[in-house]
Amino acid sequence: MALTSETQTVEIALDERSYPILIGAGLLDHAASFDRAGAGSSALVVSNTTVAPLYAERLLRALQSRHASVRVLALPDGEQYKTWETLNLVFDDLLAHGADRKTVLYALGGGVVGDMTGFAAASYMRGVPFVQVPTTLLAQVDSSVGGKTAINHPLGKNMIGAFYQPQVVVCDLDVLKTLPPRELSAGLAEVIKYGPIADMAFLDWIEANVDALRACDRTALAHAVRRSCEIKAHVVGQDERESGLRAILNFGHTFGHAIEAGMGYGAWLHGEAVGAGMVMAAELSRELGRVDTAFVQRLTALIDRAGLPTRGAVIDPVDNAGRYLDLMRVDKKAEGGDIRFVVIDGPGRAAVCAAPDALVRQVIDRCT
Amino acid sequence: MALTSETQTVEIALDERSYPILIGAGLLDHAASFDRAGAGSSALVVSNTTVAPLYAERLLRALQSRHASVRVLALPDGEQYKTWETLNLVFDDLLAHGADRKTVLYALGGGVVGDMTGFAAASYMRGVPFVQVPTTLLAQVDSSVGGKTAINHPLGKNMIGAFYQPQVVVCDLDVLKTLPPRELSAGLAEVIKYGPIADMAFLDWIEANVDALRACDRTALAHAVRRSCEIKAHVVGQDERESGLRAILNFGHTFGHAIEAGMGYGAWLHGEAVGAGMVMAAELSRELGRVDTAFVQRLTALIDRAGLPTRGAVIDPVDNAGRYLDLMRVDKKAEGGDIRFVVIDGPGRAAVCAAPDALVRQVIDRCT
Repeated sequence: MALTSETQTVEIALDERSYPILIGAGLLDHAASFDRAGAGSSALVVSNTTVAPLYAERLLRALQSRHASVRVLALPDGEQYKTWETLNLVFDDLLAHGADRKTVLYALGGGVVGDMTGFAAASYMRGVPFVQVPTTLLAQVDSSVGGKTAINHPLGKNMIGAFYQPQVVVCDLDVLKTLPPRELSAGLAEVIKYGPIADMAFLDWIEANVDALRACDRTALAHAVRRSCEIKAHVVGQDERESGLRAILNFGHTFGHAIEAGMGYGAWLHGEAVGAGMVMAAELSRELGRVDTAFVQRLTALIDRAGLPTRGAVIDPVDNAGRYLDLMRVDKKAEGGDIRFVVIDGPGRAAVCAAPDALVRQVIDRCT
Repeated sequence: MALTSETQTVEIALDERSYPILIGAGLLDHAASFDRAGAGSSALVVSNTTVAPLYAERLLRALQSRHASVRVLALPDGEQYKTWETLNLVFDDLLAHGADRKTVLYALGGGVVGDMTGFAAASYMRGVPFVQVPTTLLAQVDSSVGGKTAINHPLGKNMIGAFYQPQVVVCDLDVLKTLPPRELSAGLAEVIKYGPIADMAFLDWIEANVDALRACDRTALAHAVRRSCEIKAHVVGQDERESGLRAILNFGHTFGHAIEAGMGYGAWLHGEAVGAGMVMAAELSRELGRVDTAFVQRLTALIDRAGLPTRGAVIDPVDNAGRYLDLMRVDKKAEGGDIRFVVIDGPGRAAVCAAPDALVRQVIDRCT
């Protein structure tokens, strides 16, 4: 079956590791969506206990013409399970069923499933093909695109992983209908992110369409996913392994990771932590003289309208700012103990820079 | 301090991932040996409880001019510790000490230390620089070169890992003096391997020098390490990720891995299993009409003179051949359940092919 004419494609250009992102309605049901997956005789769909009952059966049916043997493995659901122990369930399953180097892994789920399946694919027999089938807005606009895979360590988020690109990313907009409102809002945090760092016209558009997005309007979602993927593709195409530019995609994430780690993984959704983290990073940008108060207020208002927290969590009642600083010092962008912050360097433009601890403490105290 | 004129260099040509192998006496003590290591302010030397007391102090001294902070982590020694649990000790140490993306990992030890440190470097923050300082003959001629890194899984050897190239490989021939004779013999298995698969003149040379090699003659060792690395560099340069040619470097390893897994990791040294595995693979080559009996006898005699076993282990008293076949079916070269054997396709030339189970059973029964 051919893909419908409404399917849109965004290309990630990385030489021999290039691949398309397909965006459209009902893609999950079409074998043609997975033409780029690889021709291995066996495949494993890795999902979680929430998503598998909703969509695994349909994906299996679409894949049966592609692979002689396809199975589903449902992992426990939640950021707190993004661990080596859970990852090992994938390796156990692959080895118990004699999976070989051509076995294709399909990640059917949100960011946690995508990150773990991608790292499993990068590491199993030193690399097997994999496909991203993101089922959350956050995964469709951000985590499934660009080849970052990882698991968490008790001392830091995404500390153990690989840069490993999928064969194709298949974003079925219809699956977003079953997403809980809280998760949809969390995804909007990563959509909003692309505005201040790269495209103020897109920020205007989000402001005009945030209600339609929260109502799951398919046309609005299609545009948000496509434009987000275009911006991400442009950045990743220039800096696959985050040696420079790519770090700007982590706007709000340095503060956000501290919230997630400080509260215990899973207490705040990643997108919620990024929402509050963007307010803190915008406030820091203002303190550094890069943007004005109106800009911070505008971004804060939009984050609020998206249904996201605009204040960071109190993660230590005695020395809250100190605890944030400790956790941020193990951020992957840190160098020699110096935290590197992504700041807005003027509307639509981001930069990475250091900041005095005292100033960062002020921002944390004001924003939590 | 400059390197001595006696230091030899073999280049691994892999575009932007190219690197040199330095071979010479006393290299461990010279900061200049590590000029290519990377300029991070911190470094971690990963070793084991056997090697660290012998050489870690000297390496630390050489590195102190390169990195503001250098520490040593000694892992438990042995193939049975090549697990996720041990690997996690490296991540725990790196995170506890705030290691960043520029932190350099040095692998000081044999194949197990090198494989685990390499995989830790590939995965920590999705990739930090690393240096191989192999202290066994086996690691100097084989496992430290070419970027294969991995840990074992209970169901298969080296099943979880990455292709990840070091910045430089530093082979100090002097450290081989402290190697137990059994380990020196195990290393000779991988030296011998290069003859039948690629260079019969080298096989002649090994036959003439095997006694000198076992006596740790420095000139003989220098030639054996250099020629082995040259052949490996040539093969890896054409096929970094083992999509074809590189598999010939696994001559003897399909049978050998079955012995290691069947006996429990650590019971046989890897090189011992490869020694017996080469006899079995040569016998299979003869059964397939690729080489004559004289060739098998010649190779078997040399393996014996190197102090290595020439018969495989009995790993199942009831159905020994069946157990070998089961274990070989999870070999990374297997495809769709078909075992792919590296055979000698005529002296000095290897090929990868399937073989009927009945024939393989005969070979196993005859060679164990």
